[in-house]
Amino acid sequence: MSRFWSSLTHDLRPYVPGEQPRMVELVKLNTNENPLGPSPRVLEVIRSEATDTLRLYPDPQAIALRTALATYHHVRPEQVFVGNGSDEVLAHAFAALLKHDAPLLFPDITYSFYPVYCRLFGIAYDAVPLDQAMQIRVADYRRPAGALIVPNPNAPTGIALSRAEIVTLLEEHPDVPAVIDEAYVDFGAETAIPLVASYPNLLVVQTMSKSRALAGLRIGYAIGNADLIEALTRVKDSFNSYPLGRLAQAGAIASLEGEAYFQQSRVRVIEGRERLNRGWTGLASKCCRPPPTSSSRVIRRMRALSWLLRCANGR
Amino acid sequence: MSRFWSSLTHDLRPYVPGEQPRMVELVKLNTNENPLGPSPRVLEVIRSEATDTLRLYPDPQAIALRTALATYHHVRPEQVFVGNGSDEVLAHAFAALLKHDAPLLFPDITYSFYPVYCRLFGIAYDAVPLDQAMQIRVADYRRPAGALIVPNPNAPTGIALSRAEIVTLLEEHPDVPAVIDEAYVDFGAETAIPLVASYPNLLVVQTMSKSRALAGLRIGYAIGNADLIEALTRVKDSFNSYPLGRLAQAGAIASLEGEAYFQQSRVRVIEGRERLNRGWTGLASKCCRPPPTSSSRVIRRMRALSWLLRCANGR
Repeated sequence: MSRFWSSLTHDLRPYVPGEQPRMVELVKLNTNENPLGPSPRVLEVIRSEATDTLRLYPDPQAIALRTALATYHHVRPEQVFVGNGSDEVLAHAFAALLKHDAPLLFPDITYSFYPVYCRLFGIAYDAVPLDQAMQIRVADYRRPAGALIVPNPNAPTGIALSRAEIVTLLEEHPDVPAVIDEAYVDFGAETAIPLVASYPNLLVVQTMSKSRALAGLRIGYAIGNADLIEALTRVKDSFNSYPLGRLAQAGAIASLEGEAYFQQSRVRVIEGRERLNRGWTGLASKCCRPPPTSSSRVIRRMRALSWLLRCANGR
Repeated sequence: MSRFWSSLTHDLRPYVPGEQPRMVELVKLNTNENPLGPSPRVLEVIRSEATDTLRLYPDPQAIALRTALATYHHVRPEQVFVGNGSDEVLAHAFAALLKHDAPLLFPDITYSFYPVYCRLFGIAYDAVPLDQAMQIRVADYRRPAGALIVPNPNAPTGIALSRAEIVTLLEEHPDVPAVIDEAYVDFGAETAIPLVASYPNLLVVQTMSKSRALAGLRIGYAIGNADLIEALTRVKDSFNSYPLGRLAQAGAIASLEGEAYFQQSRVRVIEGRERLNRGWTGLASKCCRPPPTSSSRVIRRMRALSWLLRCANGR
C-alpha cells in the first residue's frame, strides 16, 4: 500500500507464475515446458540474426511473421495478431474485446490468469462450474453473456471439447466475442481455426511456448476476423508498438518452416505423456492403498495422483 | 468500428511508430537507432544462449538482470523493474502510478506516446507549454498535479534540464509520483538516478534501445523506491509474467558488462551528432537564403532545418 499508487494498483491480485527453481538437471513439470527443445534449424536462424542489426527496431507490424502464420493456418495476414507470449495476446484480447456490460463467461476451473485480467481491466465475469467429470458442458453456457473465453483443451484438466461442441457454443452466442485459448491444442485437440471463416466473432489464441518449445523466446498469436484483429492492434499500439524483438520474429518464422520436426516432436510428447500416465498409475497401485472408487475417471486419476504425491513425500 | 469491440477500443488513438522502410543500405534517422551496433561480446553471449534451453520459460522476475542493473546503477535489485522496451515500462507506470484525481502533467511538445497512454488508461492530463526557446520551465509546473512525467532530455527538442532543476521539480511535488523518462540521457544529460535515494516519489525510466544499440532486443527498465517498483510489478504480473525472453535477459546483462565499449560508442555518437549539426548548418547557409533572425537559438536551428528540408526537396 502506498500513497503513490494509482487506486487500481491497490486492487490487483497478480497472477503467480510457476516457480522457476534454479537447480540444474531438475526434471521440472510445473510449467509444462517441452522436454524436446526447438529444432536445430530454429537455433541456427536465431544465431544468424544475432548481428549488428540488433541496433535496429524490429518490424512493429511483424509482417513477415504474420504472413508466415497466415500461410501456415490458411488465413490472410490481416487475420493474424502476434504478441509477447500468448499471455500478452490474451491481455490485449481481454481489454479490446471481452469487456462489455454483460458478464464474461469462462469455466470455474481453468487458466488462473483469466480472473486476474478481469480485475486489471474491470471486467465483470461469471465462472461457469465444470460438471462432475470436470468437463466443460456447452449447455451450461446458455446464459446472458457479454463475451466468452474457453481454453481448449481446458487447463489444468487437459480435457478438450470437440470442434462440433465449439460450433454449438458459437451458434448459441453469435453476437458476442468468443475466444478459444488453444495453448495445448497441438497435444491432442481439434483447432477451431477453420471456423474463423464462418464465425466473425471467433478469436483463436495459440502459443509457440508449448508444442513449439519456444517458451524462452515469448511468442503468442491470435487468429480471427480482421475486425477482431484490428481491435487487438489498436490496444497494442496504444501500449507497446514493438512487443516482439528481431530474434523472436526470426525464430518463430523458422519454427513454422520446420513442419517435419514439429510433427515428430508433437507425437513424441504425446507418447511420453501416455507412458508417464501409465507409470503414475502403476506406481500408485504398487506403493499406496488404491484410490477410493468414483464414477469419474478424471476424479479417480486426480485422486491417484494425490495419493502418489503423498507416497513420494515419504508416507 | 465493430459491435464486438469493448467500448474502450473505439475511443483509442493509437501511437504511430516511426516508419520502418524495407530498403537495404538506407541511412535512416527517423527512429534514432544507434549507428554503431551492440558490442561483439553482446552478440556472442546471445548466440551462446540460443540453445535447447529456449524450451524453458525465462525467469519471470529477471533476478540476474535486475541484480546487474542494480550493481551498475548503485541501487538494490528491489529498486529495479525491467520490461519489454521502455514503452512497456512506461505503459505499466502510467497504469500503476500516474492515474490520480488531479491531472498528470507533461510538456505539450514531447514523446507523443504519453497522451496515447492517457487515453488507454483514462488518465486526465494537462500538457504544459514549452517556453519560447522550446525549453521546459520548471516554474510552469507549479500547479495542481496528480503526477508528472518529464523526458530528460526532452524529445524531440533534445534539450535537457539540469539535475538541479529536476530537484526543484521534485521538491515542489513531494506528494505525487514523478517519472523522469531518460531514453536519451546517455547522449548528454545528467541522470536523476542518484536522486532516487532521497525522493521516494521518483521513478527514472531508461532503455537499452538507444545508447546500448539494442532496439531489436526490446529492453527497458525503471529505477526507483522499492514501493514504486512493487506497483509496477503488480500491474506487470496482472498482464504478462514473462515480458523479457531468455536472449533479451542475457544480452542485456552482457551489455552492462561491456563498459569500455559502451563509453566509446556513446562518445562517438555524440561526436557524430555534433559533426552532423555543423554539416546541416553549413549546407543550409550555402544553398538557401538564411533563416530569419530570432532571439532563440533553438527556433533558429529548427527553421534552418526546415529550410534545408525544402532545399533537399528540390526548391
